[in-house]
Amino acid sequence: MTTSREERYAELIVRVGANVQPGQLVDVLAGLEHAPIVREVARSAYRAGARYVDVRYVDPHIRRALIQSTAGDDVLSWTPPWLLTRERSFGDEHGAIVALTGDAEPELLGDLPGERVGKARMLELAKEASRQVTEGLCNWTVAGVPNEGWAMQMFGEPDVDRLWKVVEHCVRLDEPDPVAAWRSHIAQLGARAQALNDLEVDALRFQGPGTDLTIGLLPQSRWLGVESETVDGIGFVANMPTEEVYTTPDARRTEGVVTATMPLCVNGTIVRGLRVRFSEGRIVEVEADEGAEVIRGQLDSDEHAAALGEVALVDGTSRIGRTGMTFFDTLFDENATCHVAIGDAYADAVEGGLIDGVNVSSVHTDFMIGGPEVSVDAVTRAGAVVPLLRAEAWQLPDRRT
Amino acid sequence: MTTSREERYAELIVRVGANVQPGQLVDVLAGLEHAPIVREVARSAYRAGARYVDVRYVDPHIRRALIQSTAGDDVLSWTPPWLLTRERSFGDEHGAIVALTGDAEPELLGDLPGERVGKARMLELAKEASRQVTEGLCNWTVAGVPNEGWAMQMFGEPDVDRLWKVVEHCVRLDEPDPVAAWRSHIAQLGARAQALNDLEVDALRFQGPGTDLTIGLLPQSRWLGVESETVDGIGFVANMPTEEVYTTPDARRTEGVVTATMPLCVNGTIVRGLRVRFSEGRIVEVEADEGAEVIRGQLDSDEHAAALGEVALVDGTSRIGRTGMTFFDTLFDENATCHVAIGDAYADAVEGGLIDGVNVSSVHTDFMIGGPEVSVDAVTRAGAVVPLLRAEAWQLPDRRT
Repeated sequence: MTTSREERYAELIVRVGANVQPGQLVDVLAGLEHAPIVREVARSAYRAGARYVDVRYVDPHIRRALIQSTAGDDVLSWTPPWLLTRERSFGDEHGAIVALTGDAEPELLGDLPGERVGKARMLELAKEASRQVTEGLCNWTVAGVPNEGWAMQMFGEPDVDRLWKVVEHCVRLDEPDPVAAWRSHIAQLGARAQALNDLEVDALRFQGPGTDLTIGLLPQSRWLGVESETVDGIGFVANMPTEEVYTTPDARRTEGVVTATMPLCVNGTIVRGLRVRFSEGRIVEVEADEGAEVIRGQLDSDEHAAALGEVALVDGTSRIGRTGMTFFDTLFDENATCHVAIGDAYADAVEGGLIDGVNVSSVHTDFMIGGPEVSVDAVTRAGAVVPLLRAEAWQLPDRRT
Repeated sequence: MTTSREERYAELIVRVGANVQPGQLVDVLAGLEHAPIVREVARSAYRAGARYVDVRYVDPHIRRALIQSTAGDDVLSWTPPWLLTRERSFGDEHGAIVALTGDAEPELLGDLPGERVGKARMLELAKEASRQVTEGLCNWTVAGVPNEGWAMQMFGEPDVDRLWKVVEHCVRLDEPDPVAAWRSHIAQLGARAQALNDLEVDALRFQGPGTDLTIGLLPQSRWLGVESETVDGIGFVANMPTEEVYTTPDARRTEGVVTATMPLCVNGTIVRGLRVRFSEGRIVEVEADEGAEVIRGQLDSDEHAAALGEVALVDGTSRIGRTGMTFFDTLFDENATCHVAIGDAYADAVEGGLIDGVNVSSVHTDFMIGGPEVSVDAVTRAGAVVPLLRAEAWQLPDRRT
C-alpha cells in the first residue's frame, strides 16, 4: 500500500510537530482549503491514540463580511463565549493543537479599511491562547498546507504540485527518513542556541539598508532552538518548517530604525516596504509602501503591542531562504531570514518566565529584517562585539552538547 | 449591478426562511462545499441587521475518522462542552439559525459498521436543539445548497448547473417575485392545514404495496402548514423547499407495516428498501435491502426513538415530487411525497405542547411512505372515513381563511 504525501505529511505533523499523546484531546484549526490534510491529521491523531479530535474550520470571508458590516469596534474584536470555552477546554485538559496555515487568499482583506481590518481580531481568544503558550499547557504545532490559492499567490498560477515539492523540501519530507532528518536538525539548532547562551549576549545590532537597530536582551533571556516542552514534559516542534534560534528581548530596550526585507501577510492584507522606528522599546513611527494602517491598527490593540516580543536569527543555510521565494505566509517567510515580532513574548525563552521586561500582548506579528546586506552583531555582557551573521553566513561556532 | 443566483438564494434564505431580525445572533451550520452560499448568507444577514454571524463548518470526514477509531460508545455520542455552550447561547439569546444541507458525499459512511454510524451523533447537542425547537426560541430554516458531490449522486455527473436549475425551481427562485410566490404558497398550505383541522382527524391510514399503516393522532394534534412562529412572534419558514402539511401523532397509536417508497440518507449512509412494523406505537421490526443497521443504531439511541414524532402529507403538485428525481437529501425527498419521522415530535403541532403521547427523542429521522400507489384516508373522530390522497391527488377541498 502506498502512502500519499498528504498522509506522510500528516504523520510528521502529528508525531514530530504536535507529538500527540494517547488520551489527548486534539484541536485542529484550519482553513477550508486545508481539508485534505485536516482529514489525514484526524486519522493520524486517532492512530496516535487521541481521545477526540475537534476541528475548527475558519473562513476569512465571514470576517470580511463582519468588517464590511456596521459592527462597532467592540463587536469587531469580540470573542464568542463558546470559542473561549473551547480554547479553555484545551488548556484545562492539556490538549494537543495543530494549526494549519497556507492562506488561499492572502490579500482577501486588502481592499478594506486597514484600521478595521487590524481591529477585527478576537482579543479574548488571543489572550487565552497566549496564556496557554506561556504556561506550557499544550503541545502544539503550526504547519503550512499547499493549496491552489497559495500557489497562485506565489507563482501566478495555481500550480499546487510545484508548491507541494517546495513545501516537502522545506519540511524535510523529501528525506528518506524525515523523522531522523528532523532529529538531526533539532540537534543542530539546539547547539547553535547553546553557543549563543554561552556568549552571554546583552544586545543584538542589525545594520543594513534602512536598518540600524539595537535590541537589548534581558540577563535572563535564553536562546532556544526548535524543540519546546510542555509542563508535562511533552516535547514538540511548534513550527514546521523552522530554521530559527530565537529569544525574548527586553521589551524596554529596542532602539533605532528597521526596514522589513520581505513583504508580510497580516490579517488578509500584504504589508510591503514596512519601516518602523523604535524609541525606548516602543514603535513610535510606522511607514509602509502598502498596508501601514493594518500595522497601526494592531498597535492600537493594546498598550504592549508596540514593543518587541521576539527576535530570531536565521542563516543562509535555511531551506526556506534558499528557495529564494516569498511565500506570503509568515510561517515560511520568517524561516527564510532573521525576524522580530511585535507583541507577545515567549515566556519559556526567559529564566523566571514573565518577569519585568517580558512583553505580554494580544498581538504577535513577525516581520523579516534579515538578508544578504544585513549584518548582525552581538554585544556581550562583557562588552565585546561578536559578529553573528555576515552576508547570511553564520559566524559563531556551534556548541555541541 | 447583476445579482448572482447565490446572492438571490441567500437573500431568500435570510429574509423569508430564517427571517433574521435586527440585532440577532445568527448561527450558520454548513458543509465545506456550501462555502459560496454561506458567505452570501453572512453578508445578507449583516444587511438584515444581524449583530454577529457565527459559522460552524462540519466535515463528515472527521466523524468518519472517529467512527474508524477505537473510541467507545460514550465518545461516539459525546458532545464537546463548547458546542453545547454554543448551542445554548443561540437559545438563550433567541438567535436565528440557518442550516444548510446538500450532502456532497451522501454515502461517505456507507462502508462503516452501521451500528457505530448510527451511534455517532452528539446526543446532548441534539437534545438541546430539540428543546429549542420545542420552546420556539429561535427562528430557523434549513435550505439545500447545490454542489458537485450532490449533483454527482443525483445525475452520475457533477453537473452543478443542472442541479441549480432544479433547486431554483423547487425553492421558487425561478419566479419573477420569489417572495410573493412564497407568500402565496404559504397561504395555500395554510388553507390545507386548516381544512384538516376542521375535519377533526382521529387517525390516518396509508395503504399500498407493502404498506398498511394506521397512525393515531391526539385530540390535541394540530395540522400546520409551512409557517412557524417563535415565542417572540417572529414568523419563519423552517424548510426551503417545503410542500407539506404536518402534525404530531399520538406516539402510542401507530400500528401496522410500512414500506419506504424512496431511499433515504441517514448519517452518511443510504438506506434502501426500508420496511418497518409498528405495534402499540413502537417499531418492533426493521428490515431493509441496505442500511438497516443504521436505523437500528438510531433506535438504540434512546427509548423513544422507536415511536413516531411526525406525519406529513404531500400531494402530486409538489415541485419536488414533479421533478421525478430522488435527491438523496431528506429536505428535498421528504417534500416529494408523504412521510413520517421516527423520534422527536414538534410540540407546536399540539395544543398544550409536550402533553402525554407527544414523543421526545434525540432522533428525528424522516422517511418517505407516499406515492402513486399509496392511498391515504382520514378516519374522523365521528367515525367517518374520508379520502385524502388517491394517486397523489389531493381529495379534500382547502379551506380559505
